Amino acid sequence: MSFAFDDFLSTTAAAQQAQPFQGLPKYHFVGGNIDEPTVPADALAEAVARVIREEGHAMGKYFMDSGPQGYLPLREEICAILDRRAGMNVPPEQVLVTTGSLQAMDLVNKALLNPGDVVLLEEANYMGAIKKLRALGVTPYPVALDEHGIRMDALEEALQTLANQGTKPKFIYTIPTIQNPTGSVLPEDRRRQMLALAKKYDVPIFEDDCYADLVFSGTRPPAIHALDDEDRVIYCGTFSKTIAPALRMGFLVAPWPLMGHILPLKTDAGSGALEQMALAEYLPGRFDAHVDALLPMLQEKADTLCAALDEHFGAAASYDRPVGGIYLWVTLPETVDTDRLYEAALKHGIEINQGSQWTVEGEKHRHRMRLCFGHAPLDTIREGVAKLADVCFEEFGLPTRSGNVARG
Amino acid sequence: MSFAFDDFLSTTAAAQQAQPFQGLPKYHFVGGNIDEPTVPADALAEAVARVIREEGHAMGKYFMDSGPQGYLPLREEICAILDRRAGMNVPPEQVLVTTGSLQAMDLVNKALLNPGDVVLLEEANYMGAIKKLRALGVTPYPVALDEHGIRMDALEEALQTLANQGTKPKFIYTIPTIQNPTGSVLPEDRRRQMLALAKKYDVPIFEDDCYADLVFSGTRPPAIHALDDEDRVIYCGTFSKTIAPALRMGFLVAPWPLMGHILPLKTDAGSGALEQMALAEYLPGRFDAHVDALLPMLQEKADTLCAALDEHFGAAASYDRPVGGIYLWVTLPETVDTDRLYEAALKHGIEINQGSQWTVEGEKHRHRMRLCFGHAPLDTIREGVAKLADVCFEEFGLPTRSGNVARG
Repeated sequence: MSFAFDDFLSTTAAAQQAQPFQGLPKYHFVGGNIDEPTVPADALAEAVARVIREEGHAMGKYFMDSGPQGYLPLREEICAILDRRAGMNVPPEQVLVTTGSLQAMDLVNKALLNPGDVVLLEEANYMGAIKKLRALGVTPYPVALDEHGIRMDALEEALQTLANQGTKPKFIYTIPTIQNPTGSVLPEDRRRQMLALAKKYDVPIFEDDCYADLVFSGTRPPAIHALDDEDRVIYCGTFSKTIAPALRMGFLVAPWPLMGHILPLKTDAGSGALEQMALAEYLPGRFDAHVDALLPMLQEKADTLCAALDEHFGAAASYDRPVGGIYLWVTLPETVDTDRLYEAALKHGIEINQGSQWTVEGEKHRHRMRLCFGHAPLDTIREGVAKLADVCFEEFGLPTRSGNVARG
Repeated sequence: MSFAFDDFLSTTAAAQQAQPFQGLPKYHFVGGNIDEPTVPADALAEAVARVIREEGHAMGKYFMDSGPQGYLPLREEICAILDRRAGMNVPPEQVLVTTGSLQAMDLVNKALLNPGDVVLLEEANYMGAIKKLRALGVTPYPVALDEHGIRMDALEEALQTLANQGTKPKFIYTIPTIQNPTGSVLPEDRRRQMLALAKKYDVPIFEDDCYADLVFSGTRPPAIHALDDEDRVIYCGTFSKTIAPALRMGFLVAPWPLMGHILPLKTDAGSGALEQMALAEYLPGRFDAHVDALLPMLQEKADTLCAALDEHFGAAASYDRPVGGIYLWVTLPETVDTDRLYEAALKHGIEINQGSQWTVEGEKHRHRMRLCFGHAPLDTIREGVAKLADVCFEEFGLPTRSGNVARG
């Protein structure tokens, strides 16, 4: 008889994965996966082999010779990239290499949040961010978005409402550049207004800039961190969306001494050395050109997804045309419930993100969905959207036309 | 003015690293660092380059094609190694690749422990294990050791005492093979007794086998997991001590469905792909020979440390001669306080582990210390121990002789 671990589980272990991984569905429109052919496998292979031959023996020590914040040459290169691309001026002592930006987020949450705390964030948001807050007993407090990102009138109203209640939020969590899932890019004037509001109400800002390299035009506003002269902004980024998600290389930028409080919470004795060494060797002189080459490919995928939606959903699907990133936030008629659509579509090998999970007030957004276009080839995008429209029609009688042909 | 994050810290962020990493002291007798020349840098470089050229594009997906438990070829190889070396029969579906065994420990703790819980463990123990339990508000309940490891009479007494109080411990945490810090190897009959006691008192066992490959004789008893026919044993291991600690490649073995509860708690979307692919390519056909070559080198280091202690501390230092591993547990006269010795030695570039931190009841063991010998070259071991004896004499008037020469 098998031992009954269920009687021993902690209160945090309620969630359960029902069975081992069964493979990805064919039409995989979820998650931050990228286009596989764009992973610079040969260049990474060459870089990692070279650096390990030269410096690999240092792996005999935890942290090599760089200490718990991560391989120093990589931190230096991250600083150079942030300077060049985001307008940020940070020393390597303020950078921590993490196992993806998800670990950075976990560390910031652990350092700052107690149960009962409140965090302000965009009303539609990365599902993982909302889940992580709730798992900690923290209340995510939604702030309205428009096509340019988080609204400053709504942010001030939220801060003032909380102040009137005597509640000080622990931080403002924001994805200003290619907001997830809406894809907006917050203009510089709103970034400055956010800093002014954060100062007025005395709250820190946690800027998640994970998609910021993927603005199709190649130009982006400076990071909020770059505009901050008070060390009020904590920042995270990643190489998952530009190099490869499975590398698990993200980073956190935080002022010392906050960094001094975060380091003891990183209890895994460092993130992988091979990944750190490979990136430190690969990135210099190559990163910008690699990203520049990605952008038109992503633009083409975005265009393909939009065209497929226009063709197969017509007026039933509305969205803001993406200016960057790898996802599209789609609004369907209110009679469509994307939780039901998710289940039905999955039976046909199509996976979508439900609006209920990508918003703080999920019930209000059950007619929305997020579609990721970074991973699938163009034909798969076209086929998948056509099939999704079929499933949607079967379930909800919508969309009523496919192209110029009436359904049903 | 710099923003005052101190007002925003969570209750878990109390600890603070005072300043960025300043480098390691010369006589570095702490931590799980290994001998740098033994890291198989060239072979790893070749393996990782080959596998990334062939399969690197799969890194465009989180988890590649293997799902959240880790790269399947690595999990299969881990199963083969556990079968061959530890007598364990586990399928890849019961293996989770982790960022070092520390993450495995964090995940098991998170899955099973609530504040107020009790965990049984060897009275002298890995400092990190004790710290992690206390950070979770869990009481570590010490069980006496002898030269063969955890004592079964003491374990039964502890289980019965707790049962009388109506307390069921959440698990028995044990390092049976090359116990940390005492270096003992638990005989097979005690392993079977531990399983019988665990069954009698209905508790799981968490077997930490991180050093088990390093028995100098090359033979070890079967893992407790291997003797368990009830899926009662959770198991973790690592390649930190055999390949390289900076690799951050450990693993957890747990029966499904416990694994199904643990996976949602691994919130970093996987450990590094390069390291997983590199090990999966490097290990087959090479691992056993690599470990076999390490053993005589470690034995020589252990012998060198013992000889240096005998020469410079004489009768003032007692220890059990190591049969494996990379550390020695040293008992000094009761007048020596290794917390003070630690501070004094550090000023001379010597770092040791204090007995107070490597035991559950720290106050009782302030005259003990752990000395790690895996990292330092032989000359550094000899020099460091001689200098440590000088510092100890200055602070405590002991040891009174160095070699055949009286001090003072």
